[in-house]
Amino acid sequence: MEIKQYMQQVGEQARIASRAIARAETTQKNRALEITADLLQRSMDLLLTENQKDLDAGEKSGLDAALLDRLALNEERVNGMAEGLRQIAALPDPVGEVSDLNYRPSGIQVGKMRVPLGVIGIIYESRPNVTADAAALCLKSGNAAILRGGSEAFHSNQAIAKLIHQGLSEAALPAHAVQVVETADREAVGELITMNRYVDVIIPRGGKGLIERISESARIPVIKHLNGICHVYIDDQADQQKAVDIAYNAKTHRYGVCNAMETLLVAEGIAAACLPPLAEQYRNEGVELRGCERAQAIIPDMLEATEADWDEEYLAPVLSIRIVDDIDAAMDHIHQHSSGHTESIVTESYGRARRFMAEVDSSSVMVNASTRFADGFEYGLGAEIGISTDKIHVRGPVGLEGLTSQKYIVLGDGHIRQ
Amino acid sequence: MEIKQYMQQVGEQARIASRAIARAETTQKNRALEITADLLQRSMDLLLTENQKDLDAGEKSGLDAALLDRLALNEERVNGMAEGLRQIAALPDPVGEVSDLNYRPSGIQVGKMRVPLGVIGIIYESRPNVTADAAALCLKSGNAAILRGGSEAFHSNQAIAKLIHQGLSEAALPAHAVQVVETADREAVGELITMNRYVDVIIPRGGKGLIERISESARIPVIKHLNGICHVYIDDQADQQKAVDIAYNAKTHRYGVCNAMETLLVAEGIAAACLPPLAEQYRNEGVELRGCERAQAIIPDMLEATEADWDEEYLAPVLSIRIVDDIDAAMDHIHQHSSGHTESIVTESYGRARRFMAEVDSSSVMVNASTRFADGFEYGLGAEIGISTDKIHVRGPVGLEGLTSQKYIVLGDGHIRQ
Repeated sequence: MEIKQYMQQVGEQARIASRAIARAETTQKNRALEITADLLQRSMDLLLTENQKDLDAGEKSGLDAALLDRLALNEERVNGMAEGLRQIAALPDPVGEVSDLNYRPSGIQVGKMRVPLGVIGIIYESRPNVTADAAALCLKSGNAAILRGGSEAFHSNQAIAKLIHQGLSEAALPAHAVQVVETADREAVGELITMNRYVDVIIPRGGKGLIERISESARIPVIKHLNGICHVYIDDQADQQKAVDIAYNAKTHRYGVCNAMETLLVAEGIAAACLPPLAEQYRNEGVELRGCERAQAIIPDMLEATEADWDEEYLAPVLSIRIVDDIDAAMDHIHQHSSGHTESIVTESYGRARRFMAEVDSSSVMVNASTRFADGFEYGLGAEIGISTDKIHVRGPVGLEGLTSQKYIVLGDGHIRQ
Repeated sequence: MEIKQYMQQVGEQARIASRAIARAETTQKNRALEITADLLQRSMDLLLTENQKDLDAGEKSGLDAALLDRLALNEERVNGMAEGLRQIAALPDPVGEVSDLNYRPSGIQVGKMRVPLGVIGIIYESRPNVTADAAALCLKSGNAAILRGGSEAFHSNQAIAKLIHQGLSEAALPAHAVQVVETADREAVGELITMNRYVDVIIPRGGKGLIERISESARIPVIKHLNGICHVYIDDQADQQKAVDIAYNAKTHRYGVCNAMETLLVAEGIAAACLPPLAEQYRNEGVELRGCERAQAIIPDMLEATEADWDEEYLAPVLSIRIVDDIDAAMDHIHQHSSGHTESIVTESYGRARRFMAEVDSSSVMVNASTRFADGFEYGLGAEIGISTDKIHVRGPVGLEGLTSQKYIVLGDGHIRQ
């Protein structure tokens, strides 16, 4: 079968299955998740064998060590996947929640009901655990899912898909509610992101390149996370110890993550007091510092930051530092260079905290807290399918609710428009 | 200046103004609206003179009577515009509302804050009142607006724009917060819907053709209303009088509107009792009926409905009628033919009402009420910029809240990730 024809069939099957999954009861969805979790653990040998095929092929084709590591399954990771499914089963079901139901002067009652989006297409790279994860989040939120994993994880993903299908069937749900695309051909992605008859939203997960390519070509709304150029601003009314702790944690807690701080902004009035102890801590941790002229004047062994540094997502032990006049200059810098992910102010000033929260236009805005908290689990969503840096539909960590929408419901008793 | 360059400048100005308008206080935004309302009424002569230029040009270029009527301003319509602005000023400000602020186990507080989308591009056709209306809704919700009206209303729109700018200036808000594109060139639209650096969302208002063209070419999220193929389903457990009243009202209250019923579905068990009195009422009103075979068997002088009728938005005194076996067949028909706008069930059965509400996937789902209620004013939104038949971001009537999004806020006191 041709790719286009195959994908159209996948889409049509998903659309049909989406009606059944949208009206499925909570216990039925949870049963599918719990059965699949058990199956994953009971199929350990099969999963590791299939994964080994991918690893062998990856080694042969010269994948680097980091990619091979992401690709690899082992007992711990399979148990982790199963545990993830059980956690999602334990979350409250967002579907059908009615809010704001009120009487109107005409006598009708009007409210909103939370409903699934329909069919969600998810495109991701090498980690096979995303297959189980994404399927579970879509299923629990009442959506059908079309999953397209990286070609390097092909055998692993197919093996996981088989177990999910078994779980769905045993819970009397249609197997097409979760479909893992059965071809490694890239044309399948092109088809997936343009068949707006069947797919309601696309969520790409992966590197910036992948996400830009998909956003550029999609004919379907995309919920995306481009990059995380996160800022901490140390105000001159900051508590010094809190400032040092937060700036240190935001940079060094983990480097390769989107909510790590990439640029530190420091108010001129506090820089001379704050920067030296902080620079000392960074130095001990091996963090390379790149500063503006004023920062270099305080920490002489700092490299010079170029204009390009302010727009760089290092994802590495590198930090750019800029000294600014005040909160206005800090917010101007953020406005110009932030990717809209997460920014934090450190201050004891009530008024400045209030302004920063209102005026900074990022998906997470924090006061006296490390940017590393920007995470679905830390926020209490229970699980996340990604972090949206878009402004439409959903911002920040996307959990079950982000995979739903709200329709209006109207209750009358023979009411007509006058 | 070239169109592209001009539009880029408009975009950049909007982006800059959006920061000021996002942080403007409620009273300041309301003042701008109230001053503009006064100015509109005090500039009656100017507005009518400028509008006359458009009417003259329209007549010369052969616009039909309906279009000329939509284009025309008169004292009543200008007063209506002013009244509309005052009503929007009186609505609660959605910006800054904090919800769900809770402590997390880590000690941080996490909540959501409602924030403007940023810059909204609105593309519409001949009615000049949309200029004031759309500007006011964007302004009140803290967004900058770029408005592109129909070329046939060029002079009217420019005159209204001038007064809005004066209103903004007198309230000490940047005039660029509302920009009306100053060229009738179509290239401006092409530029507006692709400059994603500056514009966050596009809202097209107008005919299906316009909206399809824009959705097809936009590189920015579009909130759109495609069409309204609305259904009423009369269940065999319906109260006959309510069924007749609702089906009559949904079709005949107004014909040219998106929330008018276009197809009536009737359960076989009640059709023989319900259809004859209803057909009589429609006949007296001059509504043309087109029915399936089974409907024709009951009402012999009905025309035959073709397959195409089920997908037709008549916007006219025409109604297609289909007799279905039961609620499942009705929902199957709706699933296949509805445009996702509004559907209503008439039934006294609690169980069927509950199922219909949960399972029908439209922006408004009703029980025992006329589809004509699907409207921002009837729902209590105070005003609406349109009705979304999309599934992402906002469904149904779009008021101030639909022009906002929610960001996360995090309050700590020196908290770091462990």
